[in-house]
Amino acid sequence: MSDQRFDPAALGHHLIIDLIKPKFTADAKHVDCVLRNAVRAVGARLLALEVHGFGAGAGVTGVAVLAESHLSFHSWPERDYAALDMFVCGGLDPSACLPVLQTGFDPDEMRTRLIVRGG
Amino acid sequence: MSDQRFDPAALGHHLIIDLIKPKFTADAKHVDCVLRNAVRAVGARLLALEVHGFGAGAGVTGVAVLAESHLSFHSWPERDYAALDMFVCGGLDPSACLPVLQTGFDPDEMRTRLIVRGG
Repeated sequence: MSDQRFDPAALGHHLIIDLIKPKFTADAKHVDCVLRNAVRAVGARLLALEVHGFGAGAGVTGVAVLAESHLSFHSWPERDYAALDMFVCGGLDPSACLPVLQTGFDPDEMRTRLIVRGG
Repeated sequence: MSDQRFDPAALGHHLIIDLIKPKFTADAKHVDCVLRNAVRAVGARLLALEVHGFGAGAGVTGVAVLAESHLSFHSWPERDYAALDMFVCGGLDPSACLPVLQTGFDPDEMRTRLIVRGG
């Protein structure tokens, strides 16, 4: 799926993020911390954060509800993979969270696809 | 952005959904109800649901945390638009929620883009 470009006049931007061979993604407390930092890096306002671990060594799911939309995180440690998406409106740039994800999860590779949202 | 095809062997499927001229999207209780029905239609298991209204006549944000990933909803009634995404793993088909969204929000048009997720 091809990328779209950031458009300051758009309603919002939705960044699809794949982490290849990330680390520490089975640790719900670590995920909670990284997601909070990712929201802060983008300049969004956190309204609620739910982080759910599926058991020792298993995946973690986290969803942040933002005043500007949402951030989601889902990991499959047994597949060496985590899927995220950051959707923010109000002219914010979701890619501002990428350095936080790189530092927090140290993946071998990050793949991103940008979707411009709006009617 | 071009569409991808449903792949039963994929880790998961992420459906990006735009509702053009939807109705009842400023009513948080209605949104809560439709989101629960959408999760049920896909056959996913709801772990948590956060629905947040931004004031009378203003937008609503809702995020459902699923055992199989998430469903999000964000509306801008003043722009006659709502943005959703349904991400489900485990071979579930996110497009099974579309009839529920059509009935619940009665949009003039629904636009969808399917993203296959996995490392």
